[in-house]
Amino acid sequence: MTQKYQAINFKDKFSKFNETWTPKILGQFDGYYLKAAKMNGEFVWHSHKDADELFIVISGSLTIHFRDGEVNLSAGECFIVPHGKEHKPVAHGEVCCLLIEQAGVLNTGDQGGEKTVSDEEWI
Amino acid sequence: MTQKYQAINFKDKFSKFNETWTPKILGQFDGYYLKAAKMNGEFVWHSHKDADELFIVISGSLTIHFRDGEVNLSAGECFIVPHGKEHKPVAHGEVCCLLIEQAGVLNTGDQGGEKTVSDEEWI
Repeated sequence: MTQKYQAINFKDKFSKFNETWTPKILGQFDGYYLKAAKMNGEFVWHSHKDADELFIVISGSLTIHFRDGEVNLSAGECFIVPHGKEHKPVAHGEVCCLLIEQAGVLNTGDQGGEKTVSDEEWI
Repeated sequence: MTQKYQAINFKDKFSKFNETWTPKILGQFDGYYLKAAKMNGEFVWHSHKDADELFIVISGSLTIHFRDGEVNLSAGECFIVPHGKEHKPVAHGEVCCLLIEQAGVLNTGDQGGEKTVSDEEWI
């Protein structure tokens, strides 16, 4: 029987896709999306002019570089990147990460380029 | 040496307090708070008129009851309670849970009462 109310299970959601740097939408609250992203290797330097961005690491090890420092995140850790702050995520092997940010925020922010995903998919 | 940028470690944060049903603020992004709450037993029926609420369970087992159903959440699962939806969290033993919602939202919503925490603390 399908239950009327269904939990979002992170392990289940991350098993549904393999693409890296391609956030999938898991849910919406108010004008914000909860997303699941797989990361591996280096992403591009970028910033989000008007949107803070919450990273929650579910598995793996992620460094977020800033122009003046860095933060290392492992499973069970999170960090909020302030709006306007240039950052470059680097995943040490495969990382499963939740992202929470305003709906409509692009993954590459003001940077654009080939890694931009403008039609994020719900899973 | 103190690092300029510091991860928020959930295990560390949950070790800093024992009160139940007393959310602590871990961080802010835009106008939203990331909070840590310990739960045990039954909370009160309530709703948040204008605010959706994201529950992410870190440890333990939580049921969120609705007037017309319920959802069971374990570690690694989440659920978004829509604004205006009456709900009653029931924790089966101690539950460590993250909450994400607009800053200023009260834990008891429109219900009030003795479990209301109006001056949530940062940890």
